[in-house]
Amino acid sequence: MITDKGAFLLDLFLVIIYKLSIFMKLTVVLAGKVRDTDYQRILNDYAMRLNSFVNFEFKELKVAEDHPLKDKEIAKLLELGKDGYTIAMDVNGESHTSESFANFLNETLNIKKNLVFYIGGAFGLGKEFVCRCDKLISLSRMTMAHKVALLVLMEQIYRAFTIISGHPYHK
Amino acid sequence: MITDKGAFLLDLFLVIIYKLSIFMKLTVVLAGKVRDTDYQRILNDYAMRLNSFVNFEFKELKVAEDHPLKDKEIAKLLELGKDGYTIAMDVNGESHTSESFANFLNETLNIKKNLVFYIGGAFGLGKEFVCRCDKLISLSRMTMAHKVALLVLMEQIYRAFTIISGHPYHK
Repeated sequence: MITDKGAFLLDLFLVIIYKLSIFMKLTVVLAGKVRDTDYQRILNDYAMRLNSFVNFEFKELKVAEDHPLKDKEIAKLLELGKDGYTIAMDVNGESHTSESFANFLNETLNIKKNLVFYIGGAFGLGKEFVCRCDKLISLSRMTMAHKVALLVLMEQIYRAFTIISGHPYHK
Repeated sequence: MITDKGAFLLDLFLVIIYKLSIFMKLTVVLAGKVRDTDYQRILNDYAMRLNSFVNFEFKELKVAEDHPLKDKEIAKLLELGKDGYTIAMDVNGESHTSESFANFLNETLNIKKNLVFYIGGAFGLGKEFVCRCDKLISLSRMTMAHKVALLVLMEQIYRAFTIISGHPYHK
């Protein structure tokens, strides 16, 4: 039986654990640019919220938009996540519920400390790039525009942290 | 063998077919309100684009946000889609790729002429409501905030029309 005092200490313990996680790093890298200011504002808002849970960074790599990623661009993308555990968002990747994604994020952050999520542009990330990532995850079986996929990913990462930490979800 | 003239006539035929589809109707109903102006602008943009393919309408029904849908709210929601073929967006619904969703949309619009998609608010649509819909479709196994789900749905419907009509996809 958990007493009130026990529940309070458990809560305190969880808060301390999640304040410590500020030393963990999470990066989202887009192979492209978000030009639409409405999307930029929404993404900035998620980035700000995520920073209260983890050391979060969003990076954009300008790539040519009229053809698949070239070797040079692949090398630059890999460079951006070189010390991290790399996760490519790919329609054929592992599928998750929000809860199983939260578990995956929690366990992997605790072990690897530094996670890098990649999202592709108009031509996707390409087979050559995703083969060099540690993990492939799918947000949906549906193909989404990169700015929509980015928004879904940011919301799922935010949702995952609220699930892990028992923090209320702010809409 | 398809000659140049044959290809031109085929194109013309497709254009006529899709201009005729303007008499078909597609409605998206949200059980809730989108208050964020960034989302509103993005959704309006999709609504405008969709109107070049189909008679499109977006409706919001103001519902209480602190509890699941009440009988009165369910009745109002059903009223909004009463002449249409009703499709509830539900995490446990039928899963689709963008291509299979486009096929579903094309076939169903041709037969039913009037489609109504429903998206739930903070408490979802609820079992009682979805049981009264003709079809359940899932955008992802992940639970999304209603404004994010709405945006994904609008983008998938737009993408579906570009796939069906061979129209280039504008990002």
